[in-house]
Amino acid sequence: MEYFAGEYDVIVIGAGHAGCEAGLASARLGMKTLMLTTSLESVALMPCNPAIGGTGKGHLVREIDALGGEMGKNIDKTLIQSRMLNTSKGPAVHSLRAQADKKRYQASMKLTLEKEKNLDLKESEVVEILVEGEKVKGVKTKTGARFATKAIIVATGTYLKGRIYIGEVNFEGGPSGLFPANRLSESLEDLGVKLRRFKTGTPARIHRDSLDFDKMEIQPGDKEIVPFSFMTDKIDKEQVPCWLTYTNENTHKIILDNLSRSPMYKGEIEGVGPRYCPSIEDKVVRFSDKNRHQLFIEPEGLDTCEMYVQGMSTSLPEDVQIKMLRSIPGLENVKIMRTAYAIEYDCLDPTQLKRTLEYKGIDNLFFAGQINGSSGYEEAAAQGIIAGINAALKIKDKEPFILDRSEAYIGVLIDDLVTKGTNEPYRMMTSRAEYRLILRQDNADLRLTEKGYKIGLVDDERYNRLLNKKKLIEEEKKRLKNIKFTPTNETNEFLKKLGTAPLKTPTTLYNLIKRPELSYEGLNDLDKDRPELPKEIKRQVETQIKYEGYIKKQLRQIDQFKKLEGKKLPKDIDYNKIKGLRLEARQKLNEIRPDSLGQASRISGVSPADISVLLVYLEQRRRLQNRSGQDD
Amino acid sequence: MEYFAGEYDVIVIGAGHAGCEAGLASARLGMKTLMLTTSLESVALMPCNPAIGGTGKGHLVREIDALGGEMGKNIDKTLIQSRMLNTSKGPAVHSLRAQADKKRYQASMKLTLEKEKNLDLKESEVVEILVEGEKVKGVKTKTGARFATKAIIVATGTYLKGRIYIGEVNFEGGPSGLFPANRLSESLEDLGVKLRRFKTGTPARIHRDSLDFDKMEIQPGDKEIVPFSFMTDKIDKEQVPCWLTYTNENTHKIILDNLSRSPMYKGEIEGVGPRYCPSIEDKVVRFSDKNRHQLFIEPEGLDTCEMYVQGMSTSLPEDVQIKMLRSIPGLENVKIMRTAYAIEYDCLDPTQLKRTLEYKGIDNLFFAGQINGSSGYEEAAAQGIIAGINAALKIKDKEPFILDRSEAYIGVLIDDLVTKGTNEPYRMMTSRAEYRLILRQDNADLRLTEKGYKIGLVDDERYNRLLNKKKLIEEEKKRLKNIKFTPTNETNEFLKKLGTAPLKTPTTLYNLIKRPELSYEGLNDLDKDRPELPKEIKRQVETQIKYEGYIKKQLRQIDQFKKLEGKKLPKDIDYNKIKGLRLEARQKLNEIRPDSLGQASRISGVSPADISVLLVYLEQRRRLQNRSGQDD
Repeated sequence: MEYFAGEYDVIVIGAGHAGCEAGLASARLGMKTLMLTTSLESVALMPCNPAIGGTGKGHLVREIDALGGEMGKNIDKTLIQSRMLNTSKGPAVHSLRAQADKKRYQASMKLTLEKEKNLDLKESEVVEILVEGEKVKGVKTKTGARFATKAIIVATGTYLKGRIYIGEVNFEGGPSGLFPANRLSESLEDLGVKLRRFKTGTPARIHRDSLDFDKMEIQPGDKEIVPFSFMTDKIDKEQVPCWLTYTNENTHKIILDNLSRSPMYKGEIEGVGPRYCPSIEDKVVRFSDKNRHQLFIEPEGLDTCEMYVQGMSTSLPEDVQIKMLRSIPGLENVKIMRTAYAIEYDCLDPTQLKRTLEYKGIDNLFFAGQINGSSGYEEAAAQGIIAGINAALKIKDKEPFILDRSEAYIGVLIDDLVTKGTNEPYRMMTSRAEYRLILRQDNADLRLTEKGYKIGLVDDERYNRLLNKKKLIEEEKKRLKNIKFTPTNETNEFLKKLGTAPLKTPTTLYNLIKRPELSYEGLNDLDKDRPELPKEIKRQVETQIKYEGYIKKQLRQIDQFKKLEGKKLPKDIDYNKIKGLRLEARQKLNEIRPDSLGQASRISGVSPADISVLLVYLEQRRRLQNRSGQDD
Repeated sequence: MEYFAGEYDVIVIGAGHAGCEAGLASARLGMKTLMLTTSLESVALMPCNPAIGGTGKGHLVREIDALGGEMGKNIDKTLIQSRMLNTSKGPAVHSLRAQADKKRYQASMKLTLEKEKNLDLKESEVVEILVEGEKVKGVKTKTGARFATKAIIVATGTYLKGRIYIGEVNFEGGPSGLFPANRLSESLEDLGVKLRRFKTGTPARIHRDSLDFDKMEIQPGDKEIVPFSFMTDKIDKEQVPCWLTYTNENTHKIILDNLSRSPMYKGEIEGVGPRYCPSIEDKVVRFSDKNRHQLFIEPEGLDTCEMYVQGMSTSLPEDVQIKMLRSIPGLENVKIMRTAYAIEYDCLDPTQLKRTLEYKGIDNLFFAGQINGSSGYEEAAAQGIIAGINAALKIKDKEPFILDRSEAYIGVLIDDLVTKGTNEPYRMMTSRAEYRLILRQDNADLRLTEKGYKIGLVDDERYNRLLNKKKLIEEEKKRLKNIKFTPTNETNEFLKKLGTAPLKTPTTLYNLIKRPELSYEGLNDLDKDRPELPKEIKRQVETQIKYEGYIKKQLRQIDQFKKLEGKKLPKDIDYNKIKGLRLEARQKLNEIRPDSLGQASRISGVSPADISVLLVYLEQRRRLQNRSGQDD
């Protein structure tokens, strides 16, 4: 007889950014949830950059928030600097980024977990996934306890068989001086999960008082802080600055002179690193024509002198780290508090997963976060909430929750991972999204809150806030359409002052806003009865009007996209039996088992010709089934 | 040629309570100091009880503070509940104890270290002590860096070859889920340091919301918070309560039924545990006549639901832990967040150390804290400050700083350790002090601040505060001696009301205060011109007057004690050559090499007869040297 120390609906392994969202989503959907972590000190830990958001990533945070997730609220509570990036570019690529007080971010998230009904948080290392038949049954911990469960979400980040590399030295270790988790890897492999090695790295942490800020450029926060969460009304706090400095040719020479001592270049690290977050030695080698690289010196919190050196990730030896840092303006006398390192870890090929993030081989075994081959806290959190939702829906025997590429960056992220796979740590970027004028960070709530509400993750307060926002936007747009101007002298004089052409025919205020030279705010004086509206509504109205043409075009593209996504591929197809498909396409289709023709078309190795073959096949199958009176 | 990543005067290995005081003392005495810790997350960590002080321990904290240490200031900043213990007993055993916000205690101490001039704090595991000849030269870290230094203070706590035990399971580990330090043990043994195994343990951490407080007794803090530090004027904050509950016969039955599964009782743990902080299974077995044991449920901080179960330390298996906790009133539905464990670790026999805490075998190698066989944060911190001071003094070529048993609990602690040794984790207790009426917690500043000032650790502000306090006390005592009462009706009526005998002869107010029924405050109305004095001064005056007789007697005892302490034993004595000494005494004396006859008399195995032999020997030697014109 097996003794279970507890019985749960969902067990989440890991309490990093993926685990936190997974656990909260599951518990908030009524599942009795247990989160197990190797260390309660590592809850919501940021082992690398002390920041949330950034280009593309900021979009993910707002989408997580719109669905009822926690990351946005938590960074709003604990940020120490905030900036909206790319404001000189179009609204599609505006991205929010905030420096966090790392310790407070952790403490605040931990308290949220502790306070969540249905959620138990416990320090314990899982060493084995217990399976019965083809379905998960429980977990076993290092201390010998067993917990029964209906579903498991594995969110182990970079802990699985973690190995730290610093120059000639390497040893077992998780991130930030924590223990690695070695035995769970073996349990996963025993279950048939194919694992592989990825690597990532982090720069040194340096002491503030050892820096000369006079030699750097100050990077203050925005005057007006835009919150991440749609539920945060206003953030009013003093911000701390970051600092900008640069590497130089001397720095690069030190690095190149010592390249032979880098474990990456010696071939000691087999894991593949993140292309878009390379180590400084990678940057110096790959971009040998550049004579300097940007570095941001960022505070790790308000109660510490530790600072993060963004852009300086490395696995070079400690003595080289000291030399190269001290070659940088402002860092001549730098004191290192934590040494930079590379970490290599086990992760899985995410094409082994369904779009719900469930493992194809075992029922109710989900994976989320860095273990799926992604990089970044936000990418992890996005997968976490989706895995949490789908674990709960599956237990409730409800339809899975899948966001497609036209609905959210989260959809792009997960589709990229499970359909295309990745051979390096995957990072979100706006360029990965086809419909980025629709998938803006500013409208994440308009796109997703209703979906969150339907699932049950969004409460009435948030939902009513959305409805009200929608109403205000529509009313204002309607009002603007009803205000007409004739080409009077007065009007044209006003327009001239604003540097735009005079009217020749009557025009609505709505259409005037479309002009590149004009803005909603700038037309205030022409708009006598303008109602008092929140800034956010005004911005939304303006964006929707200004980009109306592009948006409409993109919506038509989405219609096309949806058609292919709508052509479902039955689960029982044996692609080997479809004539005309190329061998590679057969193999890949059998492996990935896409849900739709759309998904099939994105599998690398499946050509447009193969898609035509599948289209014909689907049509034939439909006719055959209609004839025999069967439904598909 | 050896490359050193840095050169220092003093390197402190470890940043726990001993390491923090050692590093600060050394840096504040002008030494360029490096503190190395395996994890910056473990600075000033309280891996067990989230509290500072307690009986005997509170005395240590105030003594550390009086010398210019940090522990008192830090707990004052971060306490969440404060109580003066034993107030129903005499002032000698009054002891301050405060619950800490564990995380804030750490963050605050870490920031103090970071902000300290001359002090570098760095995350790095030391794997080797580098020695040249008979003197330390530097350390080598796990990542291959070497740091040169003139002195080293080893303050590694329970990390050396740490091994965690939970029921049938055991594995390598430091406290609180952190990495153990394995390689440093080997380096120490290579240097000839004799190591041995001790063990300690910690109870489970449980979730506040899973408790039923209606079934427990509330333990609020004191109305008036007495600060630990003599530099803290006033602490005015809301306090959180602790809760009292008890084990019962059912609990004890569960424990006894599962005793065979305890690694202690199976003999798997070779290390010796602390007698005065036993595990619950020890208590149940050793005090089998008791049908209940007290348990205090204490919050771990303001930002967490984790609570500590004081009195319930155990290494029983996880399933037994759950059962036994759930048998306790108020804990019927308890949720465990961290499992209790025992930890076994390498420490040394402290008789290998001098009273400066320097290792006898190697110059400038100091040891402080739990590695010396003590238990408790306060005992660790006390050793830390003494080691830090003596490392600095030795480098400066100054006289060592030694507190004797009549001067401070710190003196008792260190003398006990290095002279008597200990065969179990040593805990401070008031009963260990011979002169406890002198060594009160309330007069630690009067006893020690001047000494701290002479060394250079106490700044002018603190010193002037002491001088002023002393002046006020003396003036007030003098004033009270000058106020005389004659046996008038009015006076005697007043005294009668206070329940004390009427005067027959003229008496001073000073002498009236000595009466057990009367107090300084209570005589206020009789004392028309009483000056406005701080509470602390009034308390001090009263204690000094009330216990004057006892104090005088103890001072005479101390004179006697000092005579024996003053009889120095030359360093070059070969005890084997002294006739009349018993064999055991010869061996022990050669091993410990006491500084004085007093110290020799406290060595276990050295009898009063041996001391007489030594006295005669010293006298002979003195005469011989006088004859040959030599000075001793």
